[in-house]
This record gives sequence, structure tokens and C-alpha cells, in this order.
Amino acid sequence: MAKDFPTRDENYAQWYQDLVIKADLAENSAVRGCMVIKPYGFAIWEKMQAVLDKMFKDTGHSNAYFPLFIPKSFFSKEATHVEGFAKECAIVTHYRLKTTEDGKGVMVDPDAKLEEELIIRPTSETIIWNTYKGWIQSYRDLPLLINQWANVVRWEMRTRLFLRTTEFLWQEGHTAHETSAEAVQETERMLGVYADFCENFMSMPVIKGVKSANERFAGALETYCIEALMQDGKALQAGTSHFLGQNFAKAFDVKFTSREGKLEHVWATSWGVSTRLMGALVMAHSDDDGLVLPPKLAPIQVVIVPIHKGDEQLKQISEVALRIKSELEAKNISVKYDDRDTYKPGWKFAEYEFKGVPVRIAIGPRDLENKTVEVARRDTKEKSVMQLTDLALKIEHLLTNIQETIYNKAISFRDSRTYNADTMDELEKILDTTGGFVHAHWDGTPETEEKIKEKTKATIRCIPLGNRKEEGKCIYSGKPSSQRVIFARAY
Amino acid sequence: MAKDFPTRDENYAQWYQDLVIKADLAENSAVRGCMVIKPYGFAIWEKMQAVLDKMFKDTGHSNAYFPLFIPKSFFSKEATHVEGFAKECAIVTHYRLKTTEDGKGVMVDPDAKLEEELIIRPTSETIIWNTYKGWIQSYRDLPLLINQWANVVRWEMRTRLFLRTTEFLWQEGHTAHETSAEAVQETERMLGVYADFCENFMSMPVIKGVKSANERFAGALETYCIEALMQDGKALQAGTSHFLGQNFAKAFDVKFTSREGKLEHVWATSWGVSTRLMGALVMAHSDDDGLVLPPKLAPIQVVIVPIHKGDEQLKQISEVALRIKSELEAKNISVKYDDRDTYKPGWKFAEYEFKGVPVRIAIGPRDLENKTVEVARRDTKEKSVMQLTDLALKIEHLLTNIQETIYNKAISFRDSRTYNADTMDELEKILDTTGGFVHAHWDGTPETEEKIKEKTKATIRCIPLGNRKEEGKCIYSGKPSSQRVIFARAY
Repeated sequence: MAKDFPTRDENYAQWYQDLVIKADLAENSAVRGCMVIKPYGFAIWEKMQAVLDKMFKDTGHSNAYFPLFIPKSFFSKEATHVEGFAKECAIVTHYRLKTTEDGKGVMVDPDAKLEEELIIRPTSETIIWNTYKGWIQSYRDLPLLINQWANVVRWEMRTRLFLRTTEFLWQEGHTAHETSAEAVQETERMLGVYADFCENFMSMPVIKGVKSANERFAGALETYCIEALMQDGKALQAGTSHFLGQNFAKAFDVKFTSREGKLEHVWATSWGVSTRLMGALVMAHSDDDGLVLPPKLAPIQVVIVPIHKGDEQLKQISEVALRIKSELEAKNISVKYDDRDTYKPGWKFAEYEFKGVPVRIAIGPRDLENKTVEVARRDTKEKSVMQLTDLALKIEHLLTNIQETIYNKAISFRDSRTYNADTMDELEKILDTTGGFVHAHWDGTPETEEKIKEKTKATIRCIPLGNRKEEGKCIYSGKPSSQRVIFARAY
Repeated sequence: MAKDFPTRDENYAQWYQDLVIKADLAENSAVRGCMVIKPYGFAIWEKMQAVLDKMFKDTGHSNAYFPLFIPKSFFSKEATHVEGFAKECAIVTHYRLKTTEDGKGVMVDPDAKLEEELIIRPTSETIIWNTYKGWIQSYRDLPLLINQWANVVRWEMRTRLFLRTTEFLWQEGHTAHETSAEAVQETERMLGVYADFCENFMSMPVIKGVKSANERFAGALETYCIEALMQDGKALQAGTSHFLGQNFAKAFDVKFTSREGKLEHVWATSWGVSTRLMGALVMAHSDDDGLVLPPKLAPIQVVIVPIHKGDEQLKQISEVALRIKSELEAKNISVKYDDRDTYKPGWKFAEYEFKGVPVRIAIGPRDLENKTVEVARRDTKEKSVMQLTDLALKIEHLLTNIQETIYNKAISFRDSRTYNADTMDELEKILDTTGGFVHAHWDGTPETEEKIKEKTKATIRCIPLGNRKEEGKCIYSGKPSSQRVIFARAY
């Protein structure tokens, strides 16, 4: 455990990085821009995966696995995709090493050059649609609802643990449909799944919306997104869901015989969330004393710490502690009983506080006498003495309460950082002071969005779904506008 | 569904490949040697993963994630590793594409050459031990028990779906210990976990043993393995567990302060199983009519097919079918009720037989009258009429029985193909007729093993754990030998 790191106010970026490393979530590796996800961090990611995977299956999707490598030529097949997608990617050119002449090292064997270079997937639309060609002939083969859990690589110049790394873990859904309407419905359904996950499991409120043309995925007709607000007033895109129209079906010649017996191109969607959510989770809730984890995603939900002198006392306390542990586990609550004698209770308190364990139960000799325990919650730091009677039930309710409290705190924070701006000055002033989501009129052109970005470093995060119509004038060009859109600086 | 493929006797290799493809387990991709794992195949792999993951956690291991890329220089650090490990691997040399001059395609940007090439991990000992250096200082940090689920790449020249592919999925455990004895114990414990999994979940008997020096993992002091016998009499190595001694700790300078206050190198193990197990599963049990899956790994354990004329009958049958379905699901049995009217019952029977669904329940009008169903088991093809009373319980027992029957059949088969050979002629004759595991005396030298391999294409699969001592003469050299070892041709 270590707490020698800056507060959020002092240096938010450093606070984040130190917290991620010192709380054993992840660290930088020997490979530029790639991270090692440590066991404690990976345990949170596994919980995220398990919940999301169940949500995908409950909405009819199956998992599959496609190659890591994509032939270079595939990228040229969908014109917008190759044009718009970042070309920073890892390229495999050779397939063999050989021993150096001095016999001490290895070198690339120049004779083992690939005829066509292979790209490490930055996303898998091309290889997957090339495969779907063989899987789809008739409307009976549709919808095709597939998800893949995978690693992907984008050669980022500036990286930050979880938020932007060269290699990251994600899931990518790729679905095929008979009609445009059905594909749009799927795109929106999966956006809803993501929002549900963020709000009900991560305790992180999100705004659902669509991206402006500038921010659209390369190859998509419409990109839907969910946007969350971090504690430094910057936005974070937490997930995207794309309506791809028939672009990839046309690029890879995927047609089906319709119910009317006609040969038509298939309609597509793709959607993904990544280990970036780990960064969002940390930045949304944690404080200057360490991680704050919502109970539903905490690897350890309750920790029990004995406070004792001598072995006899420990034995008596352990009896009570282990009984509590098994009662909690019977309610599917994950519990750690830390009876190590190599560390003092105070050290353990600080450690579990730092690691964001939602509930800490301490049991001392006086508790034994009184049939009580001391219960501390991580989010508010409140402590209370509880009777042993019905303790498991009380802890269960407490965990639910913590989950909600964390969410409500995030909602209140977001509300307090949500503004209207009617001039560029107002927009800039907000961005330079508190930051936050700024609702402002925009004339709808990519040029104006670009100009505003240049001037303020803020982008249009989204046009919220079900946005209220309102007549107004664009804050940059003064041209008429029919609605406000959300501006923010973003991760 | 398709059954136009050779029998095992006609062409075992073709039978295997056709079955894997036509049963929707996997297919070859557009990338040489890489496969696409299709949803049905992936569902089996997910079941394998879930069981193994729980076994790893129950034995104290945590999951983590390390980079896909390994700097080239890392491979030279452990001398045996670089010498012995295949140098066929995918090498990343560049990090950017650019648009070609005609604007229609993309090419590798020659200005974006990496200073040091990156190797796609063929296995992760080097990058992981380089990381462990920062994690281990004291005996308090040990044992370190970590597992990773990941994709790895080995540039294989001859590939076969699941059995040998350029990219494959696996898990790799990497543990660090205070003492040699503890590391050996871990190596053996994980071999035991693998054997338990193969026998009790895959219904596939395995022999536990150690490899001869020739077949040892590059960098290991001892390689333990489990060996299974396929229906064509060839052996298949189903998993390995390596005692690495202090080799990687020395190569990456990983030391710890011992309980006695001394600075010592850490002791290591690594162990892995891969999607190769999918190939083993198919080859161990399936027959000329398609897949045979052990119930514990079958994505669909029971399928219910209605046999009806007209909607009214279907409605009545569906009522019964759905009640059965929910009773089975209450027992955690996965059930599909296939009431599609686009396919006839006969077609469905053949389809589910082909896909290896362990139990099929058919319900017709006469069954309604008699309060019965027809139950067919996939493994023996036996059919019986069962009363509805306690049906779920009977099906539960039937699934257990199928799991055991498949295992016993495999054991009997292996017994019938297990031989002693006392001369080279005997060995060759066995290998050229039925194949199988051949116990024979060997003088213990790599040279003799190599000669026998050249002459017979058979290798020493393992020296079984707890092998019986027996005086004899090496079948090749005639030199004295103290035990028989197992020879076989292998996948």
C-alpha cells in the first residue's frame, strides 16, 4: 500500500496514473504503449466481462473467434474505412527469426518475408465480413448475431494506462440483418445494453446520443455512443454502436436471398466496449484516498479484519469472523478474512481503503463481548457498530445502498457540471474553469465543429437521443440551429 | 447438415477435417494457417474455459494479462529457450500504413520502421519473467500463482484445424516459488488438474508422465505431460506442465530475500492447454455419423423435437415440451426446443445427431396419449420410451451415464491398443497395423530415441509417472534398460 501520490486537485492526470499503478490494477510493460493488467485489475475486468457476456447472450448473441491477422489488402476494400481509419497499426512482414552469426542473439531472417503483409487487427469488420460471405446465403441465415472477445492493436503515439494503450482488450459485436430498420434497432438495442451496464453495474451515469459526422466510425452511416463525465470535468466515450448500412456487405460481396426471392446486400452493425471502461471506473468514483469501487464490480466486496492481542483472542475472533464469512458467501457476497499476522490492523485498514473494498468489518475483543462488529463503508467513510443478529442481511442491504449512493453522487456531480452556453466566450469560460457538459447551439456543419475544436479543444460529444428541439443561433457562426448539442473536452 | 464425408476407416484425416467444418466447429480463414472458431465450436471452448478457470482459481491462481508483443532481444536472454524454441514466429517490423500513390490502396510506410522488432508471443515466459522482476522482492511475495488466457502465434508450415494452427487460443500458467520442491509440487499439481479435466469433463483417459530430454520444453528442467490415444491409434499430447528451475529467474534477474535473509533466485513453473483440446475431443469420441460430445461439455445437452401434424397438435406438444424444458433447466441442464416448421423431424434428428447433442427427446401425438416421450442417446444410439413421471431426474441420470459410458469406451479402446514390444520389428508391426501405445525398453539416450524416430516415425510420448521398474534390453541398441517407456506415432 502506498499513498504518496497527488490529490485530484493537485494533479488529476498524475493522481489517476499513480492510483492505477499503486492499487495494482495495471502497469506499463517493457513494450512501448502496452500495459500489463495485474491480477487485481484483471479481476475487475473479469467481472465486467461476465456481466456483459451474459447481457449479450440474453439478447441472442453467440461468441466466436476470428484471426488476429488481417491481410493488408482487406483494408482497401471499404473505401471510407481505409480513408478514415487510423493507419497507425502493427504490421507483420516476416515469419522467421534466425540465430545471429555470433550465435548469441536472434535476427529477422530476410528470406522469410511475407508476400502480403499482415495487419494486427485494429478492429475486425473486414476479416469478419470476408468470413460472413460464406455463412450467409438466405434470409434464413439472418439475423447473424456474433460477438468476439479479443485483443486489438492501434499504434497510439500517446498512451495512458487503460484509457489509450497500443494493445487493449475489448469485445466487438458484428451483426448481419435483412433490413435497414432491423439493423438500426440492433444498433440502438446494444447501445441500451451498454448504458444499462454503465449505470447499473459501474454506477456511472451516461448520456446516449449519436455522433456528428466528424466523429463517426470510418465506414458507418451512424455512430451511437454513450458519454460519461469524469471528476475533472472531461468527457469519456464509454462505448460505441455503429449502424454500418450495407457498406461492408458491398465491400465483401455479402448477399442474401430475401423472403421475396431477391438477391440483396446484407445490413450490418458493429459495437464495442474495451478495457477503457476500467479507466472510466477509476476516474468516475475514486478519491484522494484511493479506489472507490461499486460493489457489483468489486473483486472483494467485504473484508473482515480481526483486532486482537495474542492467539487466544484471535481464535475467538476467527470463529465469529468465519461464521460471518460463510453467511455472507451464502448470499453470493465475496469476502476476504485477513488474519495475517505480518501486518497490523491499521495497515490493513489503509490497504483495503486504498483498494476500494466497499465494506470493511472489524472485530475486536469488545465486539466479542457485545456481540457486535464495526462496519465501515468505503464510499462515505461512515462507520457504525452493528449487532451480529441478521448481520448478513444488513450487509447485503448496505452493499445495495453503496451501489446506489455512488451512482447518485456521480449523477449529482454531472448535474453540477452541466451547462448551457450561448456564446463562444461562455463556452470557453466553462471549459477553462470547471469543465463539464456544455449544451450549445451548432449550425450542423463539420467546418464549424472543426473551428470550435481548434479554438477550445472541445468536441461535440453527441447529439443526445430524444434531444429537445429548440430554435437558436450557432455559437460560432450565428447561423440558425434547431437544437443544442453537447460540447466537452474529452479523453 | 451434411453427411457426405468419409468414414474413419476410409480416411481418418479427411473424416476429421470434414467433421470439424461441417459440424460448425471451425473453418479455415483467409489468413494462411489461422482458423475461425465458429459459434458452435466456441461454445464448447467456452465450457472448457469455464471449468478450467474454476479449477485454476480453486488451486489458488489469479488471472492477469501480459502484452501480445515481445521485444526480439528477450528471446536471446534464456539460452536454451532461444536455442530450442522454434524460430517460426510472426514478426512486427513496422507501425504505419500509408495510402498508395494512386490513392486506391495502402502500403507499409517505410519511414515507420521499428527500432527493435516485436515478436508476437509464441509463449510468454520471457515477457512475464521480465515483469515478475518488479513484483518479487521477498519470500512474502511468493508463491506468485498467475494464469493468462490468451492468443499465441507459431508460424506452422503444416496446419490442421484445432490440432496445429498458426494462431491458437490457450491458457498459460506462470508461477514463482521459494524452493525447488515447491515448484515441482506445483508442476505436478497442475498436471493433475489437467488430467482431472480430461478424464472427468472430456471423458478422455490420459497417461501422466514426463518427457524424455528430446521432447522437453526449451528452458525446462523437466516437462510433464498428459497423453491421450486417438481412434486411429495415434497419440495426442493434451497438455504440458514444466518445471523451469531457476532458468528464467536467472535470465531476467529475479531474486528474492529468503526467510533466512539471503538473496536467491526464484523457482518457476509454466503449464498450458490450448484449443488443441477441441481437436482431441472430436478425435477421441466422434463416429461416422458425426460428433459425440460428453454431456458436461455439450453446448446443448438435450434437444426436444416435436412430431406433429397441424398447429393444434403442435400446441399440445409444445405445452408438454416446454414443461419438460423448464424442469430440465431447473436442474441446470441446457435444453433446446426446436419447434421450427421450416425443417422436418427427420432432418432435425440427423442434424442434432451430427452435432453430437447427447440426448434427443421426441414427442408425438401417441406420446401425448400415453404420457410418454421417446428418448434417444447419441453415444450408443439406443432409444427408449420413457414415462413423463420424474422425467427430468431420469434424464439427469442418463446424462451422467452417457458421460461415463463415453469414458469407459475410450478406456477400453486404449486398453485394446496398448502393447508391449520387445524388438524393433514388433514395434514397427504394431505401428503399421493398429497403432497405439507401445511399451518398450529404451537405453535412455537421445541418440537412440532419434534413431527409433527416424526408422518408425514414433516418439517417446512419456515415461509414465510411477512407472514399474523392469530389467530389460533397449529394443534398438540392446543396451540395458530399467523400465519400459511409451512409444507412439503422434499428432
